[in-house]
Amino acid sequence: MSAPNRATLHARVLVDELAKAGVGAVCVAPGSRSTPLTVAADAHPDLVVFSHLDERSAAFFALGRAKRSDDPVALVCTSGTAAANVHPAVVEASQARVPLVALTADRPPELRDSGANQTIDQEKLYGDAVRYYDDLPEPAVEDRTLRSLRVRVDRAVTAATGVEPGPVHLNVPFAKPLEPTDVPADSPHAVPEGWVDDHPLAAYGRDGPFVTTTAGRMALDDAALADLAAAIDDAERGLLVAGPTDRECAPALVALAEASGFPILADPLSGLRYGPHVGDVPVHGGYDGYLDERVTAEWPDPDLVLRIGASPTSKPLRRYLARSGARQVVVDPAGGWREATFHASDLVTAEPGRLAVELAERLDTESANWPASTFERAERVHAGEVAATEERFEGAIARRVVADAPDPATLVVSNSMAVRDVDRFGAPRDADLAVLGNRGASGIDGVTSTALGAGSATDDPLVLLIGDLAYYHDSNGLLALERCGVDATIVLVNNDGGGIFHMLPIEAFDPPFEGQFKTPHGLDFAPTAELYGFDYVRADDPDGFADAYRASLASDGTQVIEVASDAERSHRTRESLRERVVARLAD
Amino acid sequence: MSAPNRATLHARVLVDELAKAGVGAVCVAPGSRSTPLTVAADAHPDLVVFSHLDERSAAFFALGRAKRSDDPVALVCTSGTAAANVHPAVVEASQARVPLVALTADRPPELRDSGANQTIDQEKLYGDAVRYYDDLPEPAVEDRTLRSLRVRVDRAVTAATGVEPGPVHLNVPFAKPLEPTDVPADSPHAVPEGWVDDHPLAAYGRDGPFVTTTAGRMALDDAALADLAAAIDDAERGLLVAGPTDRECAPALVALAEASGFPILADPLSGLRYGPHVGDVPVHGGYDGYLDERVTAEWPDPDLVLRIGASPTSKPLRRYLARSGARQVVVDPAGGWREATFHASDLVTAEPGRLAVELAERLDTESANWPASTFERAERVHAGEVAATEERFEGAIARRVVADAPDPATLVVSNSMAVRDVDRFGAPRDADLAVLGNRGASGIDGVTSTALGAGSATDDPLVLLIGDLAYYHDSNGLLALERCGVDATIVLVNNDGGGIFHMLPIEAFDPPFEGQFKTPHGLDFAPTAELYGFDYVRADDPDGFADAYRASLASDGTQVIEVASDAERSHRTRESLRERVVARLAD
Repeated sequence: MSAPNRATLHARVLVDELAKAGVGAVCVAPGSRSTPLTVAADAHPDLVVFSHLDERSAAFFALGRAKRSDDPVALVCTSGTAAANVHPAVVEASQARVPLVALTADRPPELRDSGANQTIDQEKLYGDAVRYYDDLPEPAVEDRTLRSLRVRVDRAVTAATGVEPGPVHLNVPFAKPLEPTDVPADSPHAVPEGWVDDHPLAAYGRDGPFVTTTAGRMALDDAALADLAAAIDDAERGLLVAGPTDRECAPALVALAEASGFPILADPLSGLRYGPHVGDVPVHGGYDGYLDERVTAEWPDPDLVLRIGASPTSKPLRRYLARSGARQVVVDPAGGWREATFHASDLVTAEPGRLAVELAERLDTESANWPASTFERAERVHAGEVAATEERFEGAIARRVVADAPDPATLVVSNSMAVRDVDRFGAPRDADLAVLGNRGASGIDGVTSTALGAGSATDDPLVLLIGDLAYYHDSNGLLALERCGVDATIVLVNNDGGGIFHMLPIEAFDPPFEGQFKTPHGLDFAPTAELYGFDYVRADDPDGFADAYRASLASDGTQVIEVASDAERSHRTRESLRERVVARLAD
Repeated sequence: MSAPNRATLHARVLVDELAKAGVGAVCVAPGSRSTPLTVAADAHPDLVVFSHLDERSAAFFALGRAKRSDDPVALVCTSGTAAANVHPAVVEASQARVPLVALTADRPPELRDSGANQTIDQEKLYGDAVRYYDDLPEPAVEDRTLRSLRVRVDRAVTAATGVEPGPVHLNVPFAKPLEPTDVPADSPHAVPEGWVDDHPLAAYGRDGPFVTTTAGRMALDDAALADLAAAIDDAERGLLVAGPTDRECAPALVALAEASGFPILADPLSGLRYGPHVGDVPVHGGYDGYLDERVTAEWPDPDLVLRIGASPTSKPLRRYLARSGARQVVVDPAGGWREATFHASDLVTAEPGRLAVELAERLDTESANWPASTFERAERVHAGEVAATEERFEGAIARRVVADAPDPATLVVSNSMAVRDVDRFGAPRDADLAVLGNRGASGIDGVTSTALGAGSATDDPLVLLIGDLAYYHDSNGLLALERCGVDATIVLVNNDGGGIFHMLPIEAFDPPFEGQFKTPHGLDFAPTAELYGFDYVRADDPDGFADAYRASLASDGTQVIEVASDAERSHRTRESLRERVVARLAD
């Protein structure tokens, strides 16, 4: 390790420790103050570096990659508003529990609050949204400083990947020179000749992380496990409700479903709606279309509901659970409260995968306890009505996007209508689909970048389902297609504005509905293809879409398939479809 | 005032008070939770509402408008990451002291931290960057609550426009119904019939603000004024250095320059480089090109420097002042320290306009005390060499942009190279040019939106000088051209990446220079014209540019004039030009 000056040494040690702590990729937005970090990341043999020009998109790309890979991803940006642009992705990472290591370069402390250029107050810039914050020590050629630096980096990565994963923020001050330039031996910035080799522990660290963290996970004791197992055994009509969560505990939850006989109501973002278990255990995905009060009034209520993951996307499901009177057990590894109707009575703070395995081992019998017909019939009726809906509407696109997705594939769904349509129309499949969305804060920002970041993490084909507002919002993210070498099939449902507002009562008030809510923009997005270099295809009808989708999946490069849509008509179709399902089930 | 429910009443009172407190425009990004605010703003007869789709751009548009109009501008966004997208503009508003009233809709307190959709921790989301933060009371049909609301709104606007203007943040919780829908009379959300007319003070407020704020400004007492006036009288070689500041105190500063004989070194963003006084008092603008140590070593040092505004853009100027040994007096209305070399010895906390008038009245004589030739000769040499530089380079474009700008005009200059080139090549003019830039945090984000917001504030022609990275970064901001009815002449200097890095030592290290700093993107921006609906013109040489610039200024609508540029060559031209100026002056 050559170290022409102390900033270079400091950054090399920092970046070396990031890599040893498990960070495999760094998203970098160019800047001057961050030069030492950028240079060190670029030179590190174990790090993949993605260069971005918009920090907001860079941070969402990092988020998406971290979501898909389960490894923490680092982000490097310069000082000033650059760091504030990272805030939206930090908030989403916090809410969705995604390990993101934000490194913001800063001026040295003596320049803060002095009118120095591009110098803002970066202390705790992301407030309580981060799991760990540290204003790192200034570069110094001191053994203890560098060991402290390594320990801090390890602590940050440990916090990002802990019981409640999430973003962390390291603010990193540097004074000039920022480049790996030699300085005179008597400069305070100099690294004395031989110093590095005389201090190998500080300068080179250890094989592996400087501090190896062995962290426990929350696990119930035998008595609590026995109580919960007994409750499951005693239940006559149990449900396993899986909201958005990571996929790694899916096999354990399937084992619990098998052992308990509880059907799974699986959010598309739960990791349980799609996978090899579908067909082996009852996985239901159409509930958003039939859990209407007029239907369920005739059903026996569930008596025990195990809730895993975040609050489900489906409002009909949340309402069904709220009115059911069932004992609801919220399982959360970090003790978070993720049930906003406040009907749940039990909070179990335990790692769901381990808990599920331990419960499955303890259950007495498979108590296939639901009137088998209840959910299964509803699913059949819902699926039949969906299949029989000839009209061109947004739900049919979402259905086909899921049904025809390759196996395996990464499928990223935007917020607003895309995720709702996938929730209702994206039927369970025995296929290895990693379905991801930003349901932490449910914003429509950064969706494209999230998708491309996710796509960068594996060789699986990448599909993105997105609406026009989200597409516009993160159009800068499209630069990563070429710049970061990601191919995608992007399905753009364009209803020219905020189609979701047709679902809301404000629709009845015009003005201001059209001007301030629906807000049609009239944008023709075809020029984005010229700008960012991909194919742009328009699909005018369902068959045309199916063909274009298949063709895109079979080809290299990126295609955006635009489906023009009438939001109001799609909304009416969704409504009438629901009415038909309800009418048949309420008979 | 009809009030079908309490959320509607609350929002109407809030928005009514905003207007009475002096807010004239509201930038709105559509969202559901913010519905009451959007509806109230849209319906208010005294408010102009601008609808945006990207909150980041919306906030910078609001910032630009507030900068140009000197009135506070409000911004309304929905809950969640939408609010985090506002953060970059809030930071810039804080650093640049621009009154921006950010209103973030939120869930009611009982839904916070519960997993409810689009619900994040918005408490103090912008940290210390705001002058005032309030988590407003929940809507309630209570006389005191509504009076409290009016008082809080007035306090927020007062804080935004106070001694140190800046952003303020009102977090506004709403429960459903959010729309102006009638609710049953026994609903807790109901406004009882007749209630509004029975409580006119709370519901209708007063004529004018509910609380009229009469705020003092910092002013020195007679003894301190006399001391400072004596110092100015005694000075033999005084300088008035005007950094970026608002334009309103320009006439007073001109009076002080006249009375003292101090030449003005005027930053292009100071409000002093352009205006009717140019020609009457010595206003120098070429100093960035000649304040080299080899030149000034032969000059007599200044003995007193009065510094107004933020730290000047020009690094040669800052270095000149640092090495001069002069007594430097930093004048700041809020007592801010804005001198990052830490050579200043005096901080005067006083409103500069009033101070300048009071000082001018007290000065004994005009003591035209500089060897008249020093700065004037340097300016002439610099201007002559600039005019004689035939090469096509970025500085020549900046020079022409300023020289040929209409009178009056609003000229917005991006950060990075644009502002540096205008600083060095945009010679003083006797013309009413409002030259604006985001020098608070000097980010390249939000520049287009800032410009269009500024353009919306007056009928003056709008010119924007911007580089390719900034153009890319805020390409979403271009939507406001049509959506907000702004026309502009946009001069896009495209050097395909981070040209500014050629100025920095990192240029010598490749890799990573090309891949991580220069980061060429190869984007052809012509499709942005198709996307957002304007004319796109390429200028291949200086004459072509001059023609295209003139044509654009003479025509309606918006034109982007792209000038392709070789950053490295432009940098070398700047350097050789400096060497020629220095050589002539150091003779």
